[in-house]
Order: sequence, then structure tokens, then C-alpha cells
Amino acid sequence: MDRDIDDLPKNDANHTALTPLWFLERAALVHPTRRSVVHGSQHYTWHQTYQRCCRLASALSNLSIGLGHTVGVLAPNIPALYEAHFGIPMAGAVLNTINIRLNASRIAFLLAHSSTVAVIVDQEFFSLLQESLKICSEKSKGFKPPIVVVVGDGNCHPDALRHALAKGVVEYERFLESGDPEFKWKPPQDEWQSIALGYTSGTTASPKGVVLHHRGAYLMSLSGALTWGMNEGAVYLWTLPMFHCNGWCYPWTLAALCGTNICLRHVTAKTVYEAIAEYKVTHFCAAPVVLNSIVNCSPEEAILPLPHVVHVNTAGSAPPPSVIAAMSELGFRVTHTYGLSETYGPSTVCAWKPEWESLPIEKSARLSSRQGVRYIALEGLEVMNTKTMQPVPADGATVGEVVMRGNAVMKGYLKNPKANEEAFANGWFHSGDLAVKHPDGYIEIKDRSKDIIISGAENISSVEVENVLYSHPAILEVSVVARPDEKWGESPCAFVTLKSGVDGTNEQRLAEDIVRFSRSKMPAFWVPKSVVFGPLPKTATGKTQKHLLRAKAKEMGPVRKSRL
Amino acid sequence: MDRDIDDLPKNDANHTALTPLWFLERAALVHPTRRSVVHGSQHYTWHQTYQRCCRLASALSNLSIGLGHTVGVLAPNIPALYEAHFGIPMAGAVLNTINIRLNASRIAFLLAHSSTVAVIVDQEFFSLLQESLKICSEKSKGFKPPIVVVVGDGNCHPDALRHALAKGVVEYERFLESGDPEFKWKPPQDEWQSIALGYTSGTTASPKGVVLHHRGAYLMSLSGALTWGMNEGAVYLWTLPMFHCNGWCYPWTLAALCGTNICLRHVTAKTVYEAIAEYKVTHFCAAPVVLNSIVNCSPEEAILPLPHVVHVNTAGSAPPPSVIAAMSELGFRVTHTYGLSETYGPSTVCAWKPEWESLPIEKSARLSSRQGVRYIALEGLEVMNTKTMQPVPADGATVGEVVMRGNAVMKGYLKNPKANEEAFANGWFHSGDLAVKHPDGYIEIKDRSKDIIISGAENISSVEVENVLYSHPAILEVSVVARPDEKWGESPCAFVTLKSGVDGTNEQRLAEDIVRFSRSKMPAFWVPKSVVFGPLPKTATGKTQKHLLRAKAKEMGPVRKSRL
Repeated sequence: MDRDIDDLPKNDANHTALTPLWFLERAALVHPTRRSVVHGSQHYTWHQTYQRCCRLASALSNLSIGLGHTVGVLAPNIPALYEAHFGIPMAGAVLNTINIRLNASRIAFLLAHSSTVAVIVDQEFFSLLQESLKICSEKSKGFKPPIVVVVGDGNCHPDALRHALAKGVVEYERFLESGDPEFKWKPPQDEWQSIALGYTSGTTASPKGVVLHHRGAYLMSLSGALTWGMNEGAVYLWTLPMFHCNGWCYPWTLAALCGTNICLRHVTAKTVYEAIAEYKVTHFCAAPVVLNSIVNCSPEEAILPLPHVVHVNTAGSAPPPSVIAAMSELGFRVTHTYGLSETYGPSTVCAWKPEWESLPIEKSARLSSRQGVRYIALEGLEVMNTKTMQPVPADGATVGEVVMRGNAVMKGYLKNPKANEEAFANGWFHSGDLAVKHPDGYIEIKDRSKDIIISGAENISSVEVENVLYSHPAILEVSVVARPDEKWGESPCAFVTLKSGVDGTNEQRLAEDIVRFSRSKMPAFWVPKSVVFGPLPKTATGKTQKHLLRAKAKEMGPVRKSRL
Repeated sequence: MDRDIDDLPKNDANHTALTPLWFLERAALVHPTRRSVVHGSQHYTWHQTYQRCCRLASALSNLSIGLGHTVGVLAPNIPALYEAHFGIPMAGAVLNTINIRLNASRIAFLLAHSSTVAVIVDQEFFSLLQESLKICSEKSKGFKPPIVVVVGDGNCHPDALRHALAKGVVEYERFLESGDPEFKWKPPQDEWQSIALGYTSGTTASPKGVVLHHRGAYLMSLSGALTWGMNEGAVYLWTLPMFHCNGWCYPWTLAALCGTNICLRHVTAKTVYEAIAEYKVTHFCAAPVVLNSIVNCSPEEAILPLPHVVHVNTAGSAPPPSVIAAMSELGFRVTHTYGLSETYGPSTVCAWKPEWESLPIEKSARLSSRQGVRYIALEGLEVMNTKTMQPVPADGATVGEVVMRGNAVMKGYLKNPKANEEAFANGWFHSGDLAVKHPDGYIEIKDRSKDIIISGAENISSVEVENVLYSHPAILEVSVVARPDEKWGESPCAFVTLKSGVDGTNEQRLAEDIVRFSRSKMPAFWVPKSVVFGPLPKTATGKTQKHLLRAKAKEMGPVRKSRL
């Protein structure tokens, strides 16, 4: 044994803290004149974006905001939110992206919980922020209100901005002007330093603050590009909110690739098709609900021909195979991923196998709707029996909990030792999602732990019931939850949104038709005993809020023994 | 300031040592049946390659070889050398790739210097190894000979293998059979652990052992794919020797991409064209000398049509613009990179700009023959006045030394504190290469420090003189060095290899023609005062050995005042 071979120390020349911030500096050097961020008539180059981020970091530093401070942003996908992903950590501070669809009391909670010292707010959400701050002041006498910077947007009605400015709030562009474009920003000394904070979005009751670090953000940025085949100069459309888990780290990826970001304030099938046509978009991420609206786009004139294959990364709940198949027919290439805020966004990908090409589209869509295999940046992924901490057999049948470990797992929850202890028990991060492992090693989520329906002694996966119901011709969206049942304890209850054009006047007959359809396609005990029509409650990121539906099903009272 | 935001510790779930070894495990899971390595009639899948690497790690462990041990491989680009990049570090040991073109005494030096405990040797190089070991034993009485494993190759004459086996040496396949394919290999606990050792190849006199670590190998593997636009499933042709700086980390990249490695024992224009046609090669790396042979391929029938654009990464000395232009016309897309063994291979890339497309091909070839901008994995690149440690102005004229810092800089030189002190002076790695920075931020190497010709008070870049001479129709290859000069101290001396078909009988007239040509294209003091014809001495990696040419020029005696 020769100790010399390992005995060479780190020094300033051969060790640098990993951070995605260097990507921006590099993009500005390599492609200074290439478009970085486009938002309606606003166009920036990488040189400009770099200077704007330096100004932002400098302006924050001038206010003594830096290491250990949290700066919030309450905005949709606009350039200021993109810039915040660099400018705030370039000042040494932590970016807290706030979901714009939260209500004032929830925002008040997280502003206080995170001790946020400054907030950058889009003009449309200024009133919401004011309301939140009012709640904070009422709840805590010692509450020190954060500095507020408001972002104007020429695409919006000017009243909201005027209102904010009348309150003496500083406008974002003026704030940037106060900063130095040549600011010597400080890269983190330690790659474990926090870069971002994001609160879990509310399929559960109590929001938890997920803390991410520079090292993980760097690794996920690169992994996200490689796993999805994104190359230098990619053109990325912002349909996924950047406030959702930092847009799965893609703000940083786009800088690494010297690509172009296309912002969208309002996501509709029409604006998506138009952006693809105008900017030759190569990639976008979207929750299944967005795919749904693209597939069922109406009027059909809104569908524009694609300039090339457009890559779509979809996560959230598993997209029904029928939606994947329809997207494929339209010329999109859907990659199905799965992850959580706690894993910097996607941590598995249903890696496509060339041998699936020759299968019937329904079969290949079925295979590619699974959650798949680990991302490159995630070193460990298992489906575990968490009682024994042994992996389940790869039989496609035995259910266990999805657990992860590696550099793409969060630092932890902010000020929540109990939650951290549970989440990191036994050296693995516990996702709370239940899955099986198939013989080919691909995992498939069966449900969130709490979404499993226990009917008699049998577990029913609500996702599996939903997947079958999606092939019913009248159903646009469906969510299945447990409803109390006198005989079985629980039984499946389906909440259904109909496709446009379907006559929904006779709900009784439609419900009977859906039950009949279900009987022909699934085990009897899976068949929904109740069918309810109407829009589904969603989180800001397009996830169906099953806890609200469960509450509704509970309110409906138990299914009587005699019924159906 | 809120310390909570940073105060979340590392644990087993959220922190894993970076290592490229996980890439292999992942490739075997995701694409078990896809071809991993092809060598003539030998074809392996990722499942097989993973098992073979586990066996190799297991077989080494059975011999108590692991942490702190160095294992050498003396082989051309064959599957065993690919497997060594995983199997050896999976045992915890360090891979020492030995250049097959070194002589026995040089190999003896580095086996002793690195305390190598085992050597895997290709059958063709068994005698060379024997000779080296004999020298080791003669030089040091206490020398403990390493374990030797010999790799047979059905494509080679069987005598060499028979000879080795007769000596009682174990054959590689038998050695693998002694290992466990389900071996629980140990990932590094610390990403700073050494993964590979490689000796500088000899444009200088004393070889230095460059030590690389798992962290850097991981980061460079990903960076190498992203910088070059390599996607999942890339088909990579091994023209670049893997023993040259671990094939610039591409063995590990290919596992990350679940791609396919095409091995080549002998690289010629014909075998390159054939491999591209047969395996639909997408990417290969090659020294300019290989590009030269592809461009000047003769007979012309060897040129086969390309199945698609083939990406070529070329480094070593800067390829002359004329070669880049000719490759482009043949349908290759040449990316020009620059780096050193000390930087895990390439550390700069001449990133292509779309706006160059519209320039005349000579102009764009000129721009793209520069060394360019830093790789993603290298956080710092500067052209520095090393006296003041200030960057030179970006004026395309002021010469300074190329310095680097970041995670893609080596751990250090093995057992060479003095060299480490010099290399890492002032917090930067000093490359020894002289360059200018252009106004667009791209760097351009002018020469190795010692290759600069000082004529009168003027510095002459030998590379610039060479670039002009390459446009002379008779010249295949040229290398320009300093020759002592009575009047000027030094003057340029050109060593020239002629293209096939050029009549070289009248050297005097050819030399005069080259001088006349030079006078019309370059400043008078750049014009070579001496022209010598013949083959150029090369290192194993295709670099011209300028120190040998300098010695030859010195032997020729000083240029007399009266001459030319």
C-alpha cells in the first residue's frame, strides 16, 4: 500500500465549490449576443442577463442582504424570476420562490417561517403580498416587514404597478439600476451552502420548507440536460412554473447550455403552440394537465404544425397512457419523469428503449408511463419494505415505498427536526410514494401512501383505476379517492371532468355508463361505487388536491350497503 | 441573518461521494442488452460489461489489492482497458494507464515510481513488460515484481499469448472467472480519493505522475458530453488511446450515456471510415495527425460516405485551419479543444457560434482553430502575466501563460512536491502554454513556453509559422523549431513531411519554393531560414516531439550570417 497516491491535498487551483452560478458567467462569455430570456416584447442577451444578475446581487448587497438571508420572489414565469435564480445566490442569499396561487394566510405563514428579508413581487401579486404582510403584522408584534421590490410588466394593466409605486415601493428596474453591473459576486465557499428554499405545495396540510444547496443544484442542472438529451443552445419554453421546485433546476441548466428561455405568463394550449412556432422551442416541461389541454385543444385551429420534434418532460401524477399516445401522434416526444421538491425535481426517468418502437402504441405508452429508473445525479433509488428496510422483489406486484439517496436529495426541511428525522430515517430519503419494481428494474408508482384505497382487506391503487377510466371516451380528467363504505370500510369514488362537447345533462346515465365501462375493464372491487361530476381542485402546479376530494367524499357520507 | 437556513447537516441520504463508477451500474440497469463494447468479433452488452468489471474488482480484492494500491494496464484500445477504468477503482485501487509506445526503461521507471502492484498487459506487449520488469529488478534489489495478467486477443498472432502462458502468467479471462460477478464493490467514501494515475508523455524529459480523483472524473465525464453535444446512446469510436489521460474521461462518459464503445487496435483512415460505416459512429476524438490522414486518405477509395454528421473532437497541437476546413467539407464536424493530462483532458473548447456559418470557410476555420473558452467543469481559465498575476488584456496580441483552476484540475503530481509547488503557484495551475486572449474572450495558444523562437528581440510563435506553411500545397506536416543563428540568436527551422505524390527528389528547389511561399505570407523575420525534409518524431499520442527536433536543429549548427 502506497499512501502517497492518495496523499495530495486540496488547494485553490484544484478544488472549487460546485455552484450553478458559474454557468451564467460562462454563458455571457461564450454567447454574449445570443438571446437568453424572451418575454413578449422583452428580449435579453446572455451579456445583458449576466449584467442584470450582477446588478441584482449588488443592489441586495448594498442593503446588507447576503449570507444567511432569505429573499422571496412572488411572480409567474417572468424574466425577474429567472434573474432571481442567479442574482439572489450571487449575493450569498437564499432564493425562496413563492407559489403565486397560495392564499394570503399561507404566504404569511411562509414569509414568517423563513424570516424572509426582502420580496420581489410581480405587479399582479402586489395586493396579495400586502394582504400577507398585514396578516404577519397582526399575528406577530415584532414582525419586521421585508423590503419590497415590485416588477412592472408592459403586458399587464398599469393600474397595479401605479398602485404599488404610489405606496412608495421601489420598482425592479430602478432597483437594478442601483446595482453595479460589474459587481464582484462571491461564489459560495462551501458547496453545501443553501441556494434555494421552497415550500411543499399543499397536497398535505402543513407546508414544509425544502432547503436545497449549491452542490445539488449544479449536479441536477447537468443531470437534467443529459437525461433528457438537451444540447447546447436548447430553446426552452417555461410552462412549468419556476416557483415549483425551482423549475426542476432548468433555470440553471439553460445557462449551462447557453440556451434560450421563453417565458409565458399564461399557459394555454394556444400560447404553447404559438411559442413553439415562433421561437422554435425544442423542450418544455408540463404537468399532465397541460398535456391534456394540448391533446384536447379546442378549437382545433389552435394546433400549429411543429417545426421539429418537441421534447416534453412531464411529471406530477403519472400521465395516462392514452395521453402519452396522443401526444406522440401529434409529434411530441414525451419523457416521463417523477420526483419531488425534496429531490430538486425529477429523480427518475422512464428511459426510452429503442425496442419499444416496434410495439403497438398502447403497449409502448403503457411502458413509458412508468416512473422508470434513477436520474444520473441520484446515486440510489429503491422500492423498499420500510419495516424490514429490504428492497421488494422486482416482480411488478409487491408494493413498497420509494426511497432515494444521493446528491440530488435536499439538505433538509427548514426548522423541522421531527420531519427531518422521519424523512431521513435509516439513511434513505422516504418519499411517501408507494410503488412496485418491474422485472426490468423500472419502478411504477401505485399511489401516495395516503391515496391507497383499502377496500375490505384489499389495497386498491387509485392511480390504476384512474388509468383505466382515462380510456373512457367522455372523460377529460378523473381523480379517484377513498369514500367511507359501510360494508367495505372504503370504496373508490371517482371525480370526473367531462370532455367539451359531451352532453353532461343526464349525470345518472353517464355515471351508470362509466360504472358499466369499469366493470368490463377492471376487477370488480376496483369499480367506483360513486361517480361525481365537476372540475377538480388543483394545486398551483397542476396536481389534483386529493385531500380536498377525500374530504368531499367523506362529507358525502358512507356508501350504504344496499347501493349499487 | 438566520443561521437555520444553512444549518442542516450531511447524512447518508443526502450526500454521496461523486464517482463515475455509478454510471456503469446504472447503464447495466437501464440498458442491459444494449451493446457496450465492440472489438472485432467480440461484442459485450452493458449487463456483461458490468459483470466483467465486478469480476475484475473481485479478483483484485481476492489478492488483497485495494485502497492505496496502483494497478497498471499496458494495452491499446481493447475491451480489457475499458473494463480497467471501472474494475480497478471498484476494488478501491488506482488505475495506471501505461503508454504502449514507451520503451522498456521508461516503463521500468514508472512501474517503480508508482509502486504498481499488478499489471494487466495485452499479449502484444508482454515482452516489453518483461523487459521492463527485468530492468526494475536489476536497478533495485528489493524490487517486488507486480502480479501480471495477460490479455489474449483472437485478432492477434497466438504466439505471444502462448509465450506468456508458458511463463505461468494468468490469462485475463481466467482471472475474471476467479472473480464474483455479484461482487459488492465499494464506492469511494471520499470523492477526493484517487482514481487514476498517468504519466506525462514526453515532450519533456522527466515524466511526472498525474493523479486524478473520483470527483474530477465524474465532473469531466458529464462536462465532456455536454460540451460536445453527446447524447444518450452515443456511438463512440476509440481512435484516441485510452492510455492518453484516460481517453479524456470518455470511458466514463460512455457509461453515463449508456452508449457504445467501438475499439480499434490499429487506427488508419481506412479503419476509421469502415468503423463509421459499420457501427454508425457518432463521435470520435483524434489528434490532428489522424485528421491529416483522414483528409489526405489515399487511395481515395478508402473514403466511405458518412451515415450522418460525425462529430470529431481534436486536441493536441492546434489543427491547421486548412485541415479543419477539409474535414468540414467531408462531412465531419470538428470541435477543437485544448487541455493537458493535468486537466483530465480538454479544458477549453472553441465553442462554435452560429454566426460563423455565414463566413467564408477559411475565415470560420481560422476562428474555430483557436483554443476557445473554458469547459463547464473548469471554473477558472485565464491568460496571465505570471510575474504580476494579472490577466493580459483581451487584445489578441499580448502573450501570457494559460492558467486554470477548478474541479477539473489534477490532485497533483505523485511524489513530486517541487513540481506541485511550481504547478500550483499562486492558487492557479500553470499550464506552461503561452497564449493570447482575443476581444471575444477566446484564447489562442501561441506556443509552449519553450517552443517560442526568439529571433533578435522578437518572439516568433512556431505554431503561427506552421499554420501558414500548412497552406502550402506540397506540405503534409510541418513542425517549426528554433535553430541557433549567428546573427539573430535563433531563427525558425522547418521540418517538413511531403504529401504522397509530391516529387521530393529535388529538395533544394522545394526548400526554395517553401521559403518563397513563406515570404509572400508572413513577416520576413518569421520566414524559416532552414527547411529539412523527412518524417516527424511523434509521441504515442501523436504529438510532435519538438525537443527532438530542437536537438536536431542544434546539431546542425548555427545558421551562418551569409546564408539565405
